[in-house]
Amino acid sequence: MTLQNGEKSSGFTLRGADGKARMGSFATSNGRFDTPNFMPVGTRGSVKGVDCERLHEAGAQIMLVNTYHLWLRPGPETVERLGGIHKFTGWNGPILSDSGGFQIFSLRHIRKVSEEGVEFRSHIDGALCFLSPELAVDIQEQLGVDIAMVLDECPAAGIGRADLEKSLEMTLRWAARSLNARKKSTTSVFAITQGGLHPDLRRRAAHALAQHPFDGFAIGGLSVGEKKESMYEVLSYHVKDLPGHKIRYLMGVGTPEDIVQAVSEGVDLFDCVMPTRAGRFGRAFIDSDEPHINIKNSRFALDREPLDGSCPCLACLNYSRGYLHHLFKVGEMLGPQLLSLHNLTHYLRLMAEIREKITAGEFAALHKEMRKRWKNFELEVEK
Amino acid sequence: MTLQNGEKSSGFTLRGADGKARMGSFATSNGRFDTPNFMPVGTRGSVKGVDCERLHEAGAQIMLVNTYHLWLRPGPETVERLGGIHKFTGWNGPILSDSGGFQIFSLRHIRKVSEEGVEFRSHIDGALCFLSPELAVDIQEQLGVDIAMVLDECPAAGIGRADLEKSLEMTLRWAARSLNARKKSTTSVFAITQGGLHPDLRRRAAHALAQHPFDGFAIGGLSVGEKKESMYEVLSYHVKDLPGHKIRYLMGVGTPEDIVQAVSEGVDLFDCVMPTRAGRFGRAFIDSDEPHINIKNSRFALDREPLDGSCPCLACLNYSRGYLHHLFKVGEMLGPQLLSLHNLTHYLRLMAEIREKITAGEFAALHKEMRKRWKNFELEVEK
Repeated sequence: MTLQNGEKSSGFTLRGADGKARMGSFATSNGRFDTPNFMPVGTRGSVKGVDCERLHEAGAQIMLVNTYHLWLRPGPETVERLGGIHKFTGWNGPILSDSGGFQIFSLRHIRKVSEEGVEFRSHIDGALCFLSPELAVDIQEQLGVDIAMVLDECPAAGIGRADLEKSLEMTLRWAARSLNARKKSTTSVFAITQGGLHPDLRRRAAHALAQHPFDGFAIGGLSVGEKKESMYEVLSYHVKDLPGHKIRYLMGVGTPEDIVQAVSEGVDLFDCVMPTRAGRFGRAFIDSDEPHINIKNSRFALDREPLDGSCPCLACLNYSRGYLHHLFKVGEMLGPQLLSLHNLTHYLRLMAEIREKITAGEFAALHKEMRKRWKNFELEVEK
Repeated sequence: MTLQNGEKSSGFTLRGADGKARMGSFATSNGRFDTPNFMPVGTRGSVKGVDCERLHEAGAQIMLVNTYHLWLRPGPETVERLGGIHKFTGWNGPILSDSGGFQIFSLRHIRKVSEEGVEFRSHIDGALCFLSPELAVDIQEQLGVDIAMVLDECPAAGIGRADLEKSLEMTLRWAARSLNARKKSTTSVFAITQGGLHPDLRRRAAHALAQHPFDGFAIGGLSVGEKKESMYEVLSYHVKDLPGHKIRYLMGVGTPEDIVQAVSEGVDLFDCVMPTRAGRFGRAFIDSDEPHINIKNSRFALDREPLDGSCPCLACLNYSRGYLHHLFKVGEMLGPQLLSLHNLTHYLRLMAEIREKITAGEFAALHKEMRKRWKNFELEVEK
C-alpha cells in the first residue's frame, strides 16, 4: 500500500540517497521513524535513568527492549496484562525487541543448542529455560512490540570455519521458522545475518534470507570484540548484499564514528548501550575536536561552561561541567541521569544531522569531518 | 519596606490565619515562597534523582542544601567560582542552607566542643576540621544562599538537664555570634531553638533569641528519635513562644501528618529527606485511606492503575503501579527517580492544599481528615 505522499503505511520507504548513504522512513502501527536512526536501549523496559518524556525531548523516535530480559522478568504475560509493551514502558512510539539470542549466548549459561532451540539457565535464579525460534516470536508478539527480531545463534569468537558454517545454516533455518511463527500482521519481523568476518558466508546469509519476505535485515555478530577495522571491512562488502528496498539494521553499533561509517555504507538503523552506559560512568560525547570527555577528570572541577554549548539538552542548558563533575565525585545519581540524557541527545542530534546532510547531498563532508575528529580518540563499546 | 500589595520586599509577611495555622510569604533576592511550605532536601547540592526543571514542575518554591556537606565537597570556594549556589545547582529560586550543626553532631566524629566552636574529623577522609558560628555563616555567605542557619549544638539524646542547660546557653551565645558574623544584607539569618522536651528551656531559648533581629526562628532538636507524641507536645506549647511576625521553621519534619499537625500549631516552613529517601526505597505517599504504600509489594505486580489517580506528576501520568513495581524488582534507577518525584509532588501539593484551606478558613477539616487517615499508618523519619 502506498500513501499519497509516496510513503507506505507500514514498513520501509526509501526516500533518497547520497552516495551509498540512504534516507527513508519506517512505518509501524505505533508511528513511523526516520532513517538513518538510532534506538536508545531499554533492556528491561527502561532506558536507564531517562524517563519517556525526556526520551521524546532528546529526539528519540524508536526504542529497543530486550526479549530475553523481559521474558524472565516480569514475563510477557505480565507485560500483556499491564496493557502491552507500549503502555507498560510509557513509550508510545515504535518499539523493536532484540530476540534475546545475543544475551543467551553471551551470558554463557548454555546447556545445549539443538536444531529445536537453545536450553539454558536463567542468570537470575538458575531456572532451566528453553527458547526456540517460534517461542522467541511468540514472546515478542505477546509483549506487543512493533518489530520482532528472529532468534539467531551467535557463535563464540574464534570458532573454526566449519563450525561457523554449520551454525550459520541453522541460524538461517531458525530465521525462516521465526518468520513462519508470526501471528499478527502488525508485527514486522527482521532477519539477522551472521557469518563472522567471511565475505562468502555473509553473502550466503544475506541471499538466503532475502528469499523470505522479511520486513528488514539486520547485520549481527559485529561489535562483539573484533577490531574496528574488521567491522568496517565487513560493512564495506556486506551491506550491499542486503536487499536495497528493505531497512538495514546494524546491531549493537556503536560510537558516533562507527555510525557515520556504517551509514556511508548504506546502513539505516542502529542501537547501542554506549550513550547511556558511558554516561553512567561519566563519559560525555561532545561536538568538539575532542569528541568525548570524562567529566570526572579534575580539569573540569572549576569549569563554568556547559558540557557542550551547542547542545539543547537539559544538562547543557542548566548545569556547568564543574557541577556535573561534583555530582560524579560525590556519587549523586543526578550525574548519571544528566550525562545519559546528554549522550542520547548527542546521538539523536547526530542522526538528525546525518539525515539533513544526506538530503542536502553533503554527507561526504560530514563523514570526512567525523573520521578526522575521531582519529586520535578511539573508544570501545563494552557489552 | 512595604510593597504596594502590603508584602515586604524581603523577609516574612504574615497574610492570614485560620486558628493557629498561618499563611504568608517570605521574600528573598532570588524570589519569594509562600508559607506554609516544604523544602526539598538537596544535601550535596542535588535533590537526589530529581533535576531542577522537574523540581519546579513538582511545585517546589525553595530548596535546602547542607553547609557541612558542601563545605567538605566541593568547598565553598569552588561553588563561588562556579557562580554561587544558584548557578551551581541550577536552582534559581530561594535556597536555605542548614548550618551543618546537626550533621557534625550526629556523625559522631566530634573531637572537642568548646565555646569557640567544634573540632571534628571529616567523615570523608578523616581530616581535622574546625567550625565556629562565624565560619558557618561565612561559608553560607560564600555559597551565596538566601537563608543561612545559625550554628547550634545538638545535644546527644538522654543528656541530663544540667548539661542540657549548659549546652543551650552556649547555643544561644553561638546564635548571637552567628548573626553578628553576617556580612551581606541580602542574607537572611534564622535562629534555632533547642531545649529538648523541657517547656521552660524551650521558652528561655525562644525569648533569648527574640532579643536579636533574626529573620526567622527555627525549632531544632525535634524529629531526632523521640516519640511522635513528645514532638507534638513540644509543638503544643513551644510554637507560640516564637515571635509572631517572623517565619517559623520546624527542622527535619516530617510525615504529611506531622506537617499538618505542626501547621495547626503555627509552623510555617519544613524540610525533610522523607519524600526522596522513602521514594528511593519504593515507598510512595498517596491520596488514599492507606496514605503510603510499598510499591515492591507483590500485590502491585499486575496493577494497571497509576500510583495516585489524583496526582499530576510524570510518574502518575505515564506509568502503572505494575511497571513501577517491575522497575524496583529489577533494580532500574528510573524507579527511585519516579517515586522521588512523585513523593515530592505529593508533599508540595499538600502544602498548596494547606495554604488553600487556611485561606478558605477550612484548615480544621483537613487537619481532622489527616489525623484520621494516618491513625493506623504511622511512619518514622529515618535520619
